[in-house]
Amino acid sequence: MTMIGFPPEIADRWSLTNWQNAPYNRWSFQHMREVVPTARVGRGTDAARPLQFAPGFDEQQIVWRLDGTSSTVAEVIADTYTDGFLVMHHGRVVLEQYPYGTSPDHAHMMMSVSKSVVGCVVGILADQGVIDPAAPVHRYIPELAKSGYRGATVRDVLDMRSGVTFSEEYLNDDAEVRLLEQVIGWAPRTHPGLPSSMYDYLATLSASRAHGIAFDYRSCETDILGWVCERASGVRMADLLSLLIWSRIGAEQDMDAAVDPAGAVFHDGGLAATLRDLGRFGQLLLDGGRLNGNQVVPAWWIADAYAGAPDSREVFAASGNDTWMPGGMYRNQFWLPYQGRDVLLCLGIHGQLIWVEPARHLVVVKLSSWPHPQMVAKLLDTFAAIDMIGFQLSLG
Amino acid sequence: MTMIGFPPEIADRWSLTNWQNAPYNRWSFQHMREVVPTARVGRGTDAARPLQFAPGFDEQQIVWRLDGTSSTVAEVIADTYTDGFLVMHHGRVVLEQYPYGTSPDHAHMMMSVSKSVVGCVVGILADQGVIDPAAPVHRYIPELAKSGYRGATVRDVLDMRSGVTFSEEYLNDDAEVRLLEQVIGWAPRTHPGLPSSMYDYLATLSASRAHGIAFDYRSCETDILGWVCERASGVRMADLLSLLIWSRIGAEQDMDAAVDPAGAVFHDGGLAATLRDLGRFGQLLLDGGRLNGNQVVPAWWIADAYAGAPDSREVFAASGNDTWMPGGMYRNQFWLPYQGRDVLLCLGIHGQLIWVEPARHLVVVKLSSWPHPQMVAKLLDTFAAIDMIGFQLSLG
Repeated sequence: MTMIGFPPEIADRWSLTNWQNAPYNRWSFQHMREVVPTARVGRGTDAARPLQFAPGFDEQQIVWRLDGTSSTVAEVIADTYTDGFLVMHHGRVVLEQYPYGTSPDHAHMMMSVSKSVVGCVVGILADQGVIDPAAPVHRYIPELAKSGYRGATVRDVLDMRSGVTFSEEYLNDDAEVRLLEQVIGWAPRTHPGLPSSMYDYLATLSASRAHGIAFDYRSCETDILGWVCERASGVRMADLLSLLIWSRIGAEQDMDAAVDPAGAVFHDGGLAATLRDLGRFGQLLLDGGRLNGNQVVPAWWIADAYAGAPDSREVFAASGNDTWMPGGMYRNQFWLPYQGRDVLLCLGIHGQLIWVEPARHLVVVKLSSWPHPQMVAKLLDTFAAIDMIGFQLSLG
Repeated sequence: MTMIGFPPEIADRWSLTNWQNAPYNRWSFQHMREVVPTARVGRGTDAARPLQFAPGFDEQQIVWRLDGTSSTVAEVIADTYTDGFLVMHHGRVVLEQYPYGTSPDHAHMMMSVSKSVVGCVVGILADQGVIDPAAPVHRYIPELAKSGYRGATVRDVLDMRSGVTFSEEYLNDDAEVRLLEQVIGWAPRTHPGLPSSMYDYLATLSASRAHGIAFDYRSCETDILGWVCERASGVRMADLLSLLIWSRIGAEQDMDAAVDPAGAVFHDGGLAATLRDLGRFGQLLLDGGRLNGNQVVPAWWIADAYAGAPDSREVFAASGNDTWMPGGMYRNQFWLPYQGRDVLLCLGIHGQLIWVEPARHLVVVKLSSWPHPQMVAKLLDTFAAIDMIGFQLSLG
């Protein structure tokens, strides 16, 4: 009964301590802007890209789940704390569900799906010559020359391969990923010595190994990218997102972008958008970055993500991530879950996902409120269900 | 240079302590949703009401200012910390200015102009029979039966005539109007004993005189109205505002509605909208509440505001407010500044204003960031400029 009533019972209200935990996160993920300050990412003034609907998809197909049981696609959706589920095939919506009351015009937290969107901003700015991926990040942000980021290139950061130390252990309150939340105001401050803004904090990080070698998924890398975009362009990220992407994909609704006390977008996880608009973004990626004759995201950016660097697969395997994504790799702020099969994947904690698979003309978006940040069984069951969906659609 | 840079200098950043003060308020009033949590008040999916433009208005007309000097309309706009200024005549925009960089699609804090909008929600719900203005507010909110609001009617509260004690001294940090800001998270908590939400706080207020007698402008009255609306309808204020008003006036942009930690809209001052959309709202009031054949706000609600209660003028004069608004009165959450001349006025601190004058077919909206909450000379100079504008336009 979270947040029901005028006012809700005190025990049923979100707080900065509980809002990302169950059961409160079901409400807060659908109301991010009511919890934290946000900037508006405008959809522009053009008409929304119309969605065509082609219902009739059979959700009763059997899928095998990670625990060895069999189930249906519908049961996987029901069992994985789904707030929104969208399947587009050949650009048409074949399935659209809001099991927990999110409406089609309601923005939902994207968590680290945000990373892939910010990555596209980098790609566009690189295409325009505003950012050089080969340049060190401290060329754009001189403050970083005194930090662990000294010498790391934009490319290193794009592929999560700088040597900077930053723990992504979500269940450890002392991990940098959680301290950063205190810095930006997403959690109560228990560490009084923390800097007052995200950028100030990023400049305090140190390195523990050489840049450009190992793959290590760290949210700070995306925040560095966002900072580079703002410094290189002189434009705030909320405006970059609007001008370069959100106003050009036919979005129905504005996007919300959480901001820190110094006005910086929380690039690595602070965006919230509607299920349908995330479907439009996925469709744009599937279509090589083009819409209505406009090259919104550079085709080479997407192609480069599928291809990876020569050693992308090797460093991924060495990172230990093969335990849950065997054969995967990471490039340009996208996950590539399969070898020999082009799937572009945007992933966020608590079950956020965009799946783009050109060969099957398939885009899937899932928005969720898993009770825990990382739940491998929920994720892999979702992958299995998406595989079945794609297979079934490719038959007919 | 407030909030310029990536990141801005620490001294140039807003904080919960400074954000409503100059020079920070120029930025924060244009970026409320980046400072505090907000709910979305959706504009709906219909096309915006098109604005016709009829430029050519002469801003060099002479007006007399409160200090005895003469000036031009343009100088008054320049001298009163104007962020946005809109004049509509016969429904056409004759003047639209953003002297400090607000863009036409950018929401600006409305402060107590919010009260008039929430008042219209009450009017609509009264028209639908959902709220009875003659009923005591504790019929809808039983918790209030134990507070100073026991026995106060919706009508008393609509006209700021309950007997509840609530100081509106903005420059006194211990005044209830400032304590309420601490409760809702708009200011740091210096009073640890304060309740955790606006509604919990309202239920602690006490009365110092009989209800229905004196006029005393207090923000708590509007917050009670908002609470009544939510309890009587079972619908959140952000949705009421969208469904009943904002989706029906042809708004271009969503409205932002600041919310407290328990999810209640800060009804008395927490709305933010674009200059143009406030012009559309003013035009709707001027047109008797109708747009395109839809009666959005009941005509009787607006007529009743102009007419007032039999003793509205008398209690206004007795309140001492004649010192700055001689001949004025207050009704249905509107100010009526003149006797014998129908002007409907929505007013907010720091220079927010909507002026609706049917006889002159005139709607004026002014959004500002005065350095102080109340600046009578700035307000009266603005009134003088608007009078000159209306007079000039009425000449044809």
